[in-house]
Amino acid sequence: MKQRVLASEANKHIGKTIKIAGWVRIRRDHGKLIFLDVRDRSGIIQVVVNPTVSEASYKAAQKLKPEYVVEIEGKVNERPGKAANTNLESGNVELEATDIKVIAKADTLPFDMGSDELNLELPTLLDHRALTLRHPKIQAIFKVQAVIIDAFREYLKGEGFMEFQAPSIAPAVAEGGAEVFEVSYFDHKAYLTQSPQLYKQIVMSAFERVFSVNKIFRAEPSVTTRHLAEVVSLDAEMAFIDSWEDVRDMAENTVRFILERVEKKCKKELSLFKTTLPVMIDKTPSISLSQAQEKIFKHFKRDVRGQKDLNPEDEREICEIIKEESGSDFVFIYGYHTRNKPFYVYPNPKNPEFNEGMDLLCRGLEWLSGGRRINDYNQLMEHVKLWKMDPAKISMFLEAFRFGVPPEGGFAFGAERMTMQILSLSNVREASIFPRDMERVDEKFSAKQ
Amino acid sequence: MKQRVLASEANKHIGKTIKIAGWVRIRRDHGKLIFLDVRDRSGIIQVVVNPTVSEASYKAAQKLKPEYVVEIEGKVNERPGKAANTNLESGNVELEATDIKVIAKADTLPFDMGSDELNLELPTLLDHRALTLRHPKIQAIFKVQAVIIDAFREYLKGEGFMEFQAPSIAPAVAEGGAEVFEVSYFDHKAYLTQSPQLYKQIVMSAFERVFSVNKIFRAEPSVTTRHLAEVVSLDAEMAFIDSWEDVRDMAENTVRFILERVEKKCKKELSLFKTTLPVMIDKTPSISLSQAQEKIFKHFKRDVRGQKDLNPEDEREICEIIKEESGSDFVFIYGYHTRNKPFYVYPNPKNPEFNEGMDLLCRGLEWLSGGRRINDYNQLMEHVKLWKMDPAKISMFLEAFRFGVPPEGGFAFGAERMTMQILSLSNVREASIFPRDMERVDEKFSAKQ
Repeated sequence: MKQRVLASEANKHIGKTIKIAGWVRIRRDHGKLIFLDVRDRSGIIQVVVNPTVSEASYKAAQKLKPEYVVEIEGKVNERPGKAANTNLESGNVELEATDIKVIAKADTLPFDMGSDELNLELPTLLDHRALTLRHPKIQAIFKVQAVIIDAFREYLKGEGFMEFQAPSIAPAVAEGGAEVFEVSYFDHKAYLTQSPQLYKQIVMSAFERVFSVNKIFRAEPSVTTRHLAEVVSLDAEMAFIDSWEDVRDMAENTVRFILERVEKKCKKELSLFKTTLPVMIDKTPSISLSQAQEKIFKHFKRDVRGQKDLNPEDEREICEIIKEESGSDFVFIYGYHTRNKPFYVYPNPKNPEFNEGMDLLCRGLEWLSGGRRINDYNQLMEHVKLWKMDPAKISMFLEAFRFGVPPEGGFAFGAERMTMQILSLSNVREASIFPRDMERVDEKFSAKQ
Repeated sequence: MKQRVLASEANKHIGKTIKIAGWVRIRRDHGKLIFLDVRDRSGIIQVVVNPTVSEASYKAAQKLKPEYVVEIEGKVNERPGKAANTNLESGNVELEATDIKVIAKADTLPFDMGSDELNLELPTLLDHRALTLRHPKIQAIFKVQAVIIDAFREYLKGEGFMEFQAPSIAPAVAEGGAEVFEVSYFDHKAYLTQSPQLYKQIVMSAFERVFSVNKIFRAEPSVTTRHLAEVVSLDAEMAFIDSWEDVRDMAENTVRFILERVEKKCKKELSLFKTTLPVMIDKTPSISLSQAQEKIFKHFKRDVRGQKDLNPEDEREICEIIKEESGSDFVFIYGYHTRNKPFYVYPNPKNPEFNEGMDLLCRGLEWLSGGRRINDYNQLMEHVKLWKMDPAKISMFLEAFRFGVPPEGGFAFGAERMTMQILSLSNVREASIFPRDMERVDEKFSAKQ
């Protein structure tokens, strides 16, 4: 649109006449004046409509309803200090309307969209996704998510990682049988990928350092606040490591970079959620599973020593302890039980019962998983047997390792879950623009029957 | 790996001892000397192994085979002008080995990987994807593809577009019935998305300018050199346009930016393919479908006037004509028959039989499609009826337009096809890292039976 000025740029034109375009967010009639909040992609600007300035504009404004699309010409006036709204992009100015054109009308909204909070139950929020995406607080979620994903890519590109496109359709179920979606694939069966793990290891074996932003699909028949059927997975894999700590450090630096970028680029969005970013100290503490269990025992007198994994309560408690000890909201846990984890995870050579896999926890929740992988073909084949894998189903993966692969490892995390955790959302569905779960793909299934 | 120097950086260390690590690409025994080409993620460096310098290294080198992973210490020597290899990253230096360690061994290769060209039939190339991905010319394809995708994102971010994650699972088949993959989705049926079109229009209706890099799935039961079952789609959509030409110009500028980035960042890769980038002149010519048909008639005496679309021969010929007329390898074709295109394409208000959709052709092939869309709810509903769509299946999409959407449009193209066309590959499967088609998901189906 020619000569249109964005809301966020209006304060660069004080005293001048400009044209804005956007959606009417709120109309407030104040005696002789009408105030409009107009939203565009950059933010919100206040428009004041004064009949003594433009009678025609006043008449037009009287008919405006929420979500009407308008084009408004007017003069940019500074707002006196007290009247300035620091929550708006151009909060120190307002537009005095001289011409208002309606570009598109809107039906009456099914609920109020004009408050700071969109007080809807989750099903309603999602049933009306096309509309609720227009609320500034909902928009903030996906702006933050875009920054998270972009920062992930930016950091790894800077570290010499190459982006690749992991496939979504897989020929067979390599790991975990039940929780996979089957696809009618021409005359065959195929499956949606649960993880790009084996593919990223293949691509790593050729390109050394690779990352991927891709979909993964989980058919877990459970409805929790933390699970989605379709997830945006951020995956990285790197060769020529000296030890699993190289992978851990790369993961830590990636998360650190993401947090820095979110802090820098999403001030407004974070403030809407009244949330502060978790503290990542200079060197995030790393402790083994058994050390974590000892700490929990000492501190909370709860004995989980010898358990094969941390349960949610353990995760909360260990994060609490580490926060107290070091000030860090993050902690790496490594040294899980080898037989409790996938076949490709590297066993600790000194104590092969435990492996060199790791998780990054923050404020009681898992943010990221990864670790060193087996790179030696013979060792890999031993694990394939022990784990009772069918080598035919992973033959392309195994071929990569038949032809020389250096020590390597990688990590992965879900974009929605990280978005949820950064913004302290209560349900991961809020962090997925079109969430898919057992009960819903766009509409709830029950609504269709 | 500590203190490792990448092949491409070796020439910054002339006269010094460094450590490199990578894969043995070629071993050449020349009398008393052994030469190695060692490949890492940055490129290839030549190593010379001289028994008078290091007897142990010489013995180790004698046992090296292609794709062994090695760590080599040695002194960086300048190669005399004549001996320099300008095709290598560090072609003006070589490493004189003082220590060679084998990190991982490799089986004997099933075919020669040491030539500049990997002379394999496509099925063999894909059957051994894990291995063939290590060939420099195959790697070049995916490096170029990563640059294309990244440039797409970079350009649009600069223009105020927000990235969003389009879903892969859809609840119903909105357009074109037969060519869609069905998914067993818990107790329901769902489908893989053929296009994010309706989702990107929904997201545009909230965020104005959006783009997405996402998978689309096509179950076309045909095996051609130009079709894949799983495609990386680059999609953009923008609101507040004045006319379809705004969309066209954004598409042109996006492609121009991508070409510039590929030219700048992929010199080495382009040279491997002995290809030159297509010429995009200052303003790419735009002609209507009927003008194109007239030109073909005039120039080639072939009468396709009145046909509803361009066929492949027409596309080749119109590109030839435009090239001759203007020097441009690109041409936009607009003004297709309204009823021949999807329901959401905007009809020309002066002549509604023709629409404001467009294609960008280059060197005889379609690169990109897009155009203006209908933004008025009532007009959209008329088309829904005329096209015999089921409104219930697109209710979320329709809701977006019930609540006010400005004039808008967008465009999309496939990353693999653009990669193929830029590198003049003969088959789009070469441009997909793990291509899926009717006959293959990783392995050929016939191989499994």
